[in-house]
Amino acid sequence: MTIKISIDCMGGDHGPSVTIPAAISFVNREPQAELILVGLEDVLHAELKKHKADKHPRLSVQHASELVEMDDPVEVALRRKKDSSMRVAIEMVKDGKAAACVSAGNTGALMAVSRYVLKTMPGVDRPAICSILPNQKNGPTYMLDLGANVDCEPHHLHQFAIMGSVLVSAMEGIARPTIGLLNVGTEEIKGNEVVKSTAKLLREDHERGILNFYGNVEGNDIFKGTTDIIVCDGFVGNVTLKAVEGLGRFVKDVMTSEFKRSPLTMLGALVARGALKNIGKRFNPSRYNGASLLGLRGLVFKSHGGADSYSFEWAIKRSFDAAKYNVQEQLSTLIAELMPRTPDQDLTGSTSK
Amino acid sequence: MTIKISIDCMGGDHGPSVTIPAAISFVNREPQAELILVGLEDVLHAELKKHKADKHPRLSVQHASELVEMDDPVEVALRRKKDSSMRVAIEMVKDGKAAACVSAGNTGALMAVSRYVLKTMPGVDRPAICSILPNQKNGPTYMLDLGANVDCEPHHLHQFAIMGSVLVSAMEGIARPTIGLLNVGTEEIKGNEVVKSTAKLLREDHERGILNFYGNVEGNDIFKGTTDIIVCDGFVGNVTLKAVEGLGRFVKDVMTSEFKRSPLTMLGALVARGALKNIGKRFNPSRYNGASLLGLRGLVFKSHGGADSYSFEWAIKRSFDAAKYNVQEQLSTLIAELMPRTPDQDLTGSTSK
Repeated sequence: MTIKISIDCMGGDHGPSVTIPAAISFVNREPQAELILVGLEDVLHAELKKHKADKHPRLSVQHASELVEMDDPVEVALRRKKDSSMRVAIEMVKDGKAAACVSAGNTGALMAVSRYVLKTMPGVDRPAICSILPNQKNGPTYMLDLGANVDCEPHHLHQFAIMGSVLVSAMEGIARPTIGLLNVGTEEIKGNEVVKSTAKLLREDHERGILNFYGNVEGNDIFKGTTDIIVCDGFVGNVTLKAVEGLGRFVKDVMTSEFKRSPLTMLGALVARGALKNIGKRFNPSRYNGASLLGLRGLVFKSHGGADSYSFEWAIKRSFDAAKYNVQEQLSTLIAELMPRTPDQDLTGSTSK
Repeated sequence: MTIKISIDCMGGDHGPSVTIPAAISFVNREPQAELILVGLEDVLHAELKKHKADKHPRLSVQHASELVEMDDPVEVALRRKKDSSMRVAIEMVKDGKAAACVSAGNTGALMAVSRYVLKTMPGVDRPAICSILPNQKNGPTYMLDLGANVDCEPHHLHQFAIMGSVLVSAMEGIARPTIGLLNVGTEEIKGNEVVKSTAKLLREDHERGILNFYGNVEGNDIFKGTTDIIVCDGFVGNVTLKAVEGLGRFVKDVMTSEFKRSPLTMLGALVARGALKNIGKRFNPSRYNGASLLGLRGLVFKSHGGADSYSFEWAIKRSFDAAKYNVQEQLSTLIAELMPRTPDQDLTGSTSK
């Protein structure tokens, strides 16, 4: 049986010229995958034809007449573009026609439309964005939230920890992934009030055997790979992620210009091209493309807006893997079991099961 | 006339074996500098003798019988070690015997002892830690706060912006340095409540011609060099700084191991050694060592605890430059003029002048 993934083919800076080649490459690589390409049907058919893939048995087109621009306000994406490729792709997940969806559209709109269409999972107050970064142990460090929630209370961070734990457990096959709480120092007395209260909740869960809480971690622990998961609020996560991406680009630019500076340095780069290739591969942000929107009643993945087709294919792969490993089902089961009743829910009267 | 700098020679991971060679090198390089070496006099004299510098006319030793360990709690540094090299070095600034002081001791202790001995400047609620990072424009990006204040109100961030502006103006000779407010997006509607209210204060000052407020900036703008100064709370600043330092070390380790992988890659590295040297130099964190503790009634500089002597010399140079450019005087004058009366001060009854 195939696993169906819906793809918002119009999203991102480059639209179908990136999303279609990525989809073709992935479907050819993965015999279990079936991809539903969502967007302006004429444009998508033309792009498929261009790549001689218009008759691929595991690629189909789903028409959507509108598209969410990268600078569209959330309001516009949500209320005025009800037949956008983004929304139609998400609705396919809701209707059970796809097991997951991927979009390179703008993050705010994708989160808002996903929340509106799919709704939040029972027991979860706020969905979070979870992505991965490379670490020195040659594995991934999962980090959340990366920008969905700029003002967080301790019980929100607590929920992020639970969701992250379930995700990593399913995606990486780690029974009890370790959780670090991002802080300004490792000692218990460090940090602001929100972080200190969160640590208390996480320690309680650790003692009850529910979570594998390592304790406080610092910014450099992301790359040391001290824990499998790092939990933080969306403000800190977003700023940190963009700062490290910025440094990465800076280093890459300086390396490129320095190795191109003279015939001698170019020769050196040629001789040591194996080393340079490995360095590039190790830090290639494309390999880490594909962030999960966690805590919704369906799997939604977000690609970088500027992704090229190699990079977008990684986002498709990540959503396919999440569907294959039944991440959604595992999240539902475990969250219903683990998630405590929260203050927000007490107020609204909804239940945690 | 010479400029006197007091140096806590016992601080940091390596103590006199790093601080003394750094002091000797700097004093030989800078004819205007006079350095007062603070610590256990026998140890310091022995180290000076070892380097044949025990009779240098611009190096003197000031005895201090105790030392603050890197893991000493703030409480111990503050109450139990009244004759520590850290405290004696700071007291020399208070007594006018030195124009600035430098320590590689632990940050929490250094800030606490500095606040206790020197007191906060009139008009400043909370001192902040300001450091510099390299950017793609080949200049420095000044960033504060980097960890002194983990819970900030808008008026604190506002004061950081004013102090940063004065510092950069004096140190870099820029008349109206640009200020960016670190946020999760550049649009005015982005961010948490504290950041949004801070932006309002900064925009008002911009309109009054007091500050050159650029607007919101994102994590990657640190390295783009979008603004001269980036303002954030100490939690975000500390996590971000440690994350980028962590990535820097990771990249360096991978480069080293990849270029050492085979005789061929080693040959390539040899041929292109000019490029590698330039890359190393551009990102060498030693060149950015020396953070200012801003907002005290005296100049205090903090070196990385793990600094080697090259790196510690940069911290000495930074404190010397700050003294030479009369940063403290400029801060006093301009802050008295610019700093608005704040809620904290209204509560305590102290005045802003």
